[in-house]
Amino acid sequence: MKNYQKYKKGYFLPPEMPMDWAKKDSIDYAPIWCSVDLRDGNQSLIIPMSLDEKIEFFNYLVKLGFKEIEVGFPAASETEFVFLRTLIEQNLIPDDVTVQVLTQSREHIIKKTFEALKGAKQAVVHLYNSTSLAQREQVFRKSKEEIIKIATDGAELLNKYAAETPGNFRFEYSPESFTGTEMEFALEICNAVLDIWQPTPDNKVIINLPATVSMSMPHVYASQVEYMSNHLKYRENVIVSLHPHNDRGCGVADAEMGLLAGADRIEGTLFGNGERTGNVDIVTMAMNMYSQGVDPGLDFTNMPDIVENYERWTRMKVYDRQPYSGKLVFAAFSGSHQDAIAKGMKWREEGHTEYWTVPYLPIDPKDVGREYETDVIRINSQSGKGGIGYLLEHNYGYNLPKKMREQFGYKVKDVSDHQHKELLPNEVYDIFKKEYVNLESPIKMVECHFANGTVKEEMQAFITLEIDGKQETLVGRGNGRLDAVSNALQERLHISFTNLTYNEHALELGSKSQAVAYVGITDDHEHIFWGVGIHTDIINASIMALISAVNNVEKQ
Amino acid sequence: MKNYQKYKKGYFLPPEMPMDWAKKDSIDYAPIWCSVDLRDGNQSLIIPMSLDEKIEFFNYLVKLGFKEIEVGFPAASETEFVFLRTLIEQNLIPDDVTVQVLTQSREHIIKKTFEALKGAKQAVVHLYNSTSLAQREQVFRKSKEEIIKIATDGAELLNKYAAETPGNFRFEYSPESFTGTEMEFALEICNAVLDIWQPTPDNKVIINLPATVSMSMPHVYASQVEYMSNHLKYRENVIVSLHPHNDRGCGVADAEMGLLAGADRIEGTLFGNGERTGNVDIVTMAMNMYSQGVDPGLDFTNMPDIVENYERWTRMKVYDRQPYSGKLVFAAFSGSHQDAIAKGMKWREEGHTEYWTVPYLPIDPKDVGREYETDVIRINSQSGKGGIGYLLEHNYGYNLPKKMREQFGYKVKDVSDHQHKELLPNEVYDIFKKEYVNLESPIKMVECHFANGTVKEEMQAFITLEIDGKQETLVGRGNGRLDAVSNALQERLHISFTNLTYNEHALELGSKSQAVAYVGITDDHEHIFWGVGIHTDIINASIMALISAVNNVEKQ
Repeated sequence: MKNYQKYKKGYFLPPEMPMDWAKKDSIDYAPIWCSVDLRDGNQSLIIPMSLDEKIEFFNYLVKLGFKEIEVGFPAASETEFVFLRTLIEQNLIPDDVTVQVLTQSREHIIKKTFEALKGAKQAVVHLYNSTSLAQREQVFRKSKEEIIKIATDGAELLNKYAAETPGNFRFEYSPESFTGTEMEFALEICNAVLDIWQPTPDNKVIINLPATVSMSMPHVYASQVEYMSNHLKYRENVIVSLHPHNDRGCGVADAEMGLLAGADRIEGTLFGNGERTGNVDIVTMAMNMYSQGVDPGLDFTNMPDIVENYERWTRMKVYDRQPYSGKLVFAAFSGSHQDAIAKGMKWREEGHTEYWTVPYLPIDPKDVGREYETDVIRINSQSGKGGIGYLLEHNYGYNLPKKMREQFGYKVKDVSDHQHKELLPNEVYDIFKKEYVNLESPIKMVECHFANGTVKEEMQAFITLEIDGKQETLVGRGNGRLDAVSNALQERLHISFTNLTYNEHALELGSKSQAVAYVGITDDHEHIFWGVGIHTDIINASIMALISAVNNVEKQ
Repeated sequence: MKNYQKYKKGYFLPPEMPMDWAKKDSIDYAPIWCSVDLRDGNQSLIIPMSLDEKIEFFNYLVKLGFKEIEVGFPAASETEFVFLRTLIEQNLIPDDVTVQVLTQSREHIIKKTFEALKGAKQAVVHLYNSTSLAQREQVFRKSKEEIIKIATDGAELLNKYAAETPGNFRFEYSPESFTGTEMEFALEICNAVLDIWQPTPDNKVIINLPATVSMSMPHVYASQVEYMSNHLKYRENVIVSLHPHNDRGCGVADAEMGLLAGADRIEGTLFGNGERTGNVDIVTMAMNMYSQGVDPGLDFTNMPDIVENYERWTRMKVYDRQPYSGKLVFAAFSGSHQDAIAKGMKWREEGHTEYWTVPYLPIDPKDVGREYETDVIRINSQSGKGGIGYLLEHNYGYNLPKKMREQFGYKVKDVSDHQHKELLPNEVYDIFKKEYVNLESPIKMVECHFANGTVKEEMQAFITLEIDGKQETLVGRGNGRLDAVSNALQERLHISFTNLTYNEHALELGSKSQAVAYVGITDDHEHIFWGVGIHTDIINASIMALISAVNNVEKQ
């Protein structure tokens, strides 16, 4: 690729990088979550949300457990002003939820922001200005001192208007485009704002460090956060907040490492909606904690419902491979994965249930409202006997003998390969029934009864069949009922089995008190023909299985 | 969320974590890339690719610059066997490209794998077996010693069959489910395999460390890689390869940090297709390097074409916010972002072109085949004057006066808000023409000529108009032509302007040799009415602009 020389690193390393954070290997408690779905998320949509959609989304965020929700930029547009007024006037903000509003550092905007907040019990007023080298040079064309003055002027105006407005206001400051800002300057401007706000234990200030555009590897961002966290004034009364974007595909890593590095709070969105590549995906972050035994403090139990609502409100799609929420993230099509999952589930059934350790499934799909039956083992031409067997067992209750599983696996893969499509569980089941179960052509069982034989332990079978539509009754002898029928059939049809295997179990799913029998008969060429019989009577089931197998011999 | 206690960390820390890698802040050269699109990518598709699709995809990967391509698991299915045979027999593998095939450690599979490779000039044979605690306990139910024996038996079989098969074969070994394996055991099994293969400078061995399932934070994975890299035997003749998956949304971070930690090679896919949440996205990794001035060694110049082909072959979608490739990743809808981008582009026009530094655009969209005109500044109800002005200027050549930009911005946002949709550039242009350009109702200009006035520097205008369809000629005097027309109009229409602003420039886009004039007239209430005139004659253009502005006064 040409032109790569036109780029250089746009970030600045902090003057020191102790990286003490990297000694911790995981996050052990949840941060304060702040949803910016209704602000950053909304402002990145092709069609921004309507008032009604925003209200529904707000109520849903509350239901999921968010205690801080940025609701917009009320001074920037009438729509956002009206939304905030509606939340306040219709009393939609629970007492334990704080709304947050964004404002530029300009007096008429700050004034209007506080007008929009009248009547709110509590709110975070979020002041920002751009601090990066690029923005200072290209957009504002101002010196560092002038940029600091924009911030401190705004900070003073927040003090002033908050004093004049009833309600409990907390302040947040963002050195916007932090990731393109010299670290010493970012620290200087944040400390200048803190000097004006004078945070106390009862009135903490949020300092938010946005990766407005992600510019570096995550450990660099974490080191920037560590530097700020170590050197901010009034640190014990400051909540360090992060607002990562996903330009380098590392939004989650940025946020997680930033937490290790001292941050207390995350601004993000559901499924990572937001400007360009999106904000950090709070669902992934929370579920990453969950998957390691940490309570995320948010409730994503009904993920399909969350996805459906999100897609309706935003008109965006949740990507099929989006961690924890995408349609395919629990899917296993390939044989070896299916086999390992099936064995892992069996291991659990054997009592190893203290911790979830099933291979290829980072979490139990059921914990987020997904189903083993439809979301995990999925069948196409890449699938294997393990998965197909698992599906028949868990969806329909059939526990196929191992060798039959193998043969049936090939049949199913062939169908999928030829039809060039995924097969749904009911389609796999249909193939199973068509290929094996209670086959009646060319031979159909009409009736069968038994008598003790003339020799000790010998059994006589009297079996009435339709063969090619013509009824006849055979008599056979053997050391058991099935053997007697088998002998009768071999004699009548001029075939011989070198082996007959037989398995039977109660069918627990679908139909009550039925038995299913599997019979495999081996011919001279070591080829096994399988048949399945289902009947309320276990003997009839086994005979129908045998006749089905024989029908498969006849059909070959 | 309930049930979080059923999880615990499933990974194992290495016995030492020097984290020397973290001293480096960026990647300064590209790794060896290996595409696994045709194997891991294909095996995760709802509908696996057909033979023809695989061949097209393979050729395309070669075109993008991949030198190593994993083409499947030829012993696992007839389709994959046939694909490899086709590549070899139809001579589709260029001399500088190596195909790679995956095999389990079982003799009949290894044998068939080498049969599939007959005639290949060179290939990587990739042996794997599962090594994690969970797989050992649940799937294989074998001891560590037995698991090592699976690996070393396979390694010896590779030696044997490679010796018997013509062609240049290199070997790769993966301790599959590495991230769930005790690090000392992973090291032991890899070294046991290396002892059998005895890598040399001319015949290096690839040791691949898959995050089959991502289980930890990226710096933990990097530390695992560092441990392996530091302790593998024959290290100078070993290529350490990574194969990250994206279960925690950190596939890119895992791969990038793993490179810092000593890895030489990355297995991944285009757009991160692959099992469940996907493999690491090679496009994002490569473009991350590119965006910092590092040649990625792959060519993603025509991203729209890559996306289109990928979507056709895989029947997957590239997510709208997928870094560098998604539809929305360069889009700016919000006013402040649009304004900063417009100013950043202006900064470049002013000659600051050594490095790309435009705010909110991590790379120049043109470098990946995207357009400023349609992909960057996008207009909806959240947009601002900066963006809308930029769009008119860059798509249509109109450089609106700042105050007019503001007014027009509100008009456009209103239309978008009421129609509840995004406006395309031509729709914005239509609003512009309808609201301002050469308006002819109620007043239409028919003809205008001038004479010198009776007083020095006075100008006389004779202007013929249709007013409400009735023609009349006005005469006016002023200190210039426009002033003379303005005075005639004010007198005739009984209106008065407190101010008249005027701008004019040549129209460089669209139509040749035309002038466009912008006239703003201010009424007693400080309200400005704007009009635009376009004409080949600059005087006529300005008079038509004035009349358009007056028409807007009359229409109010």
